[in-house]
Amino acid sequence: MKITASKENLLFGVSAVQKAVNAKNTLPILTCIKLEAKGDHLSFTATDLEVGIQCKVPAGVIEEGVCVVPARYFSEIVRKLPDSVITLELIHDGEIIIQYSNSELNLKTMPADEFPQLPVVDGEYKLSIEAGKIKQMVRQTAFACSTDESRPLFTGVLCEIENNEIRMISTDTHRLALKKEYIQNKQKKSFSFIVPAKILTEMARLIQNDEEFCQMNISKNLATFVIENIQIVCRLFDGQFPNYQQVIPSQYTLKVKTKTKLFQEAVERISLFSLDSSSNTIHLKIENNILRLFSQSELGQGYEEIPIAGEGDPVDIAFNYRYLLDVFRVLDEEELTIEFTGPLSPGIIRPVENNNFLYLVLPVRC
Amino acid sequence: MKITASKENLLFGVSAVQKAVNAKNTLPILTCIKLEAKGDHLSFTATDLEVGIQCKVPAGVIEEGVCVVPARYFSEIVRKLPDSVITLELIHDGEIIIQYSNSELNLKTMPADEFPQLPVVDGEYKLSIEAGKIKQMVRQTAFACSTDESRPLFTGVLCEIENNEIRMISTDTHRLALKKEYIQNKQKKSFSFIVPAKILTEMARLIQNDEEFCQMNISKNLATFVIENIQIVCRLFDGQFPNYQQVIPSQYTLKVKTKTKLFQEAVERISLFSLDSSSNTIHLKIENNILRLFSQSELGQGYEEIPIAGEGDPVDIAFNYRYLLDVFRVLDEEELTIEFTGPLSPGIIRPVENNNFLYLVLPVRC
Repeated sequence: MKITASKENLLFGVSAVQKAVNAKNTLPILTCIKLEAKGDHLSFTATDLEVGIQCKVPAGVIEEGVCVVPARYFSEIVRKLPDSVITLELIHDGEIIIQYSNSELNLKTMPADEFPQLPVVDGEYKLSIEAGKIKQMVRQTAFACSTDESRPLFTGVLCEIENNEIRMISTDTHRLALKKEYIQNKQKKSFSFIVPAKILTEMARLIQNDEEFCQMNISKNLATFVIENIQIVCRLFDGQFPNYQQVIPSQYTLKVKTKTKLFQEAVERISLFSLDSSSNTIHLKIENNILRLFSQSELGQGYEEIPIAGEGDPVDIAFNYRYLLDVFRVLDEEELTIEFTGPLSPGIIRPVENNNFLYLVLPVRC
Repeated sequence: MKITASKENLLFGVSAVQKAVNAKNTLPILTCIKLEAKGDHLSFTATDLEVGIQCKVPAGVIEEGVCVVPARYFSEIVRKLPDSVITLELIHDGEIIIQYSNSELNLKTMPADEFPQLPVVDGEYKLSIEAGKIKQMVRQTAFACSTDESRPLFTGVLCEIENNEIRMISTDTHRLALKKEYIQNKQKKSFSFIVPAKILTEMARLIQNDEEFCQMNISKNLATFVIENIQIVCRLFDGQFPNYQQVIPSQYTLKVKTKTKLFQEAVERISLFSLDSSSNTIHLKIENNILRLFSQSELGQGYEEIPIAGEGDPVDIAFNYRYLLDVFRVLDEEELTIEFTGPLSPGIIRPVENNNFLYLVLPVRC
C-alpha cells in the first residue's frame, strides 16, 4: 500500500471512525484502525464489534493495499502533521512510513487479516431522510435515554416508521421524549427498531451537511446508516419497547404557557438549593396565572414567581429539577406549554409553535 | 447589612476572591466569603490562611454591615442571577435574602466575627510595576516551578529587585526560567523574596487592565499586591533559593538559530513516540546547519530534520521533551536560539529579539 493524501483528509478519516475504537479493548486488533487504499480513495474502518464506522476520503493511490495501525498513535500523529502532502507507505516488515518534507515516522502495524469484516446488511426496510432532520430528532430524544447498561433497552431510542411519519421515542422510565417528522416512505410499510442512543448521537455528530440524505438499511438485528462518505453499521436491540402511548395522558386539567428562557432560568436558580440533597426536588405551584417555584434545603430556600397564561385547575406538584433542566437544552422555541392532570400525573412539556415534540416527566411524591 | 448591586458587580467580586477559598477546608468558616458593605461599596474577602484576596465593587449601601456566606452556593447563585438590580439583606436570624423581581432566595450565613482578619502588611520594601509586565513575567516563569509540595521552595518564584531591574526565577531542578524587566525603583535598595507560584498565577489572572500598576508591599514573610480594586495578601517562603547564576553557563561551544514554530511542531510529532515510555526522551543531533530530531519506542520511530543557522561544534544530546514543549507555550517570538556546551551540559533557549528571557534545560543521559 502506498498513497498520498492531504493532512486534512487524513484527519477527517481518523476523526470519523474514532468513536468506534475502544482504546481499552482487550483484543489489540480492536484498538486499531484499518486503512485500505483502492481506486482513488483511502478508506478508514474501526469497530468494537457493536458498531463499525467506515469513512472514505480522496487519496492519490500509488499502490493499492491494506494495513492496520494503532488508532491512538495514528490519530495523534495525523493531528500533528504539517499542512502538506503526506505519503503513507506500508513496507514489508510490517511498518507504515509516514513521510512529509525531509522527515519520516515509522509506525508498527498489525496483521490486516486479523481485522474483523464489517457485516453487510441487506435489510428488508430501506429509508432515506434528510440528515438535518435526523440530527434534530436525535438531539431531542437521545438525552432522555437511560445510561444504565443493566437495562439495555432503555439505553436505546425506539424508531417507528408509519405511513409518512418517523417517530423517535426515548425513556429512562422517569421521563420520556417523543419527536416526529414527515418523511417520504415509498415502501408504505410500517416498521420499528431500537438503536443504541450513543450510536445515534455519534451519527448526528458526523453529519457535516444538513441537506444531505441519510440512507438507512434495516434488518432484524442490524442497521446501516450511510451519510455521504461515511457508513455506520450497528447492532439493534432485540426486545419489546414499553407501550409509550399508554403513558401519555390524552387530556389535561390545566394547560399553561410560559417563556422557555424565563422558566429555565428560574429552575436553574431555585434548584441550587437542591444541589446537595438526594431528592433533587423542586416544587411548582400554579394558580391565578402565576407559576411559583420553590425549593429548600439546610442551606436556605429559594422562591420565585413567573407569569404564565392558561386555564384549568390549580396544581401543586414536584419534579426532579434535573429532568426539567435537560429538556430546556433541546428546546429551541421561545415559548412552551405544560399540561397537568393533578399532582400525581406526569407533566407534558411541548414547544408552542411545533407540534412535533413532546416531553413527559413524572412527578416526585412529597 | 442591606445593599443593592448589579449582577455584574456581584459576579466580579465573587470571581475575584474565589481562588482563596478552599472548598475542602475542615474549618467551615474558610469555605465562606465575607461580604462587607461600607460607604459606597461592597467588599468580598476570602482566605485559606495562606493567601487572602479582597475585592471591592460599587454598591448602593442602604445599611452598612458584614456577613459571611458559603462560597460555593453564593457563587453559584450569583452566576445564575438575572441581569438586574439585586438586593442583598442580612436579616436578624442569620439569613441573607437575595432579592430580584418578585423572587427571593434565603441563604444561611455564618457568624461574621469568626472570619479571620487578613494581616496588614507594613513592609520595608515598596514597589510599583505595570500590571502587564508582571503578567508576562509570571507567564514566562511560573510554569517551570515544581509542584512537589515536599520541597516547597521550588514551588515558589524568586523575585529579585536590583537597581532598576526586577528578575523572576523559577526552577524544579531539571530546568530553569529567568525573566527580567526594567522598573522604576525609587528606593534603590536591592531585595529579594520568594512567592508561591500559584499565587502569582492567580494574581496574573486577576489583572484586567495591563496599563494599571501593581503595588507591592513586601515584609520579611508577608506580601501585599494591590491592583485596582483587588488586594492579595500572602505568605512568602522562608529559605535560601539556590544560586541560579552558577548553573547558567557563561559561554557555549555551539549556538544555533531556528524558527520557534518549526522546532515546536517537530518536537510535538517526534515526542509522540515517547508518549508511553517513562524516559520522555527526544534526541537532538546538530551538524552542518541541520537539526535532526529522533525518538523511538516499541511502537515505532520518528525522525525529522529542520534547517538551522549557527556555528560551533556538532552536538548529540537528549532532552525530556516535556520540558521543551513547556517553553514553546510561553515564547511569543518567531525565532529562538539554543546554546550548547556539549552533551552533558544544559541547553539554553532564548528568544532572538528579546534579551530579557532565558530558559535552561538539563540534558538526559542516554
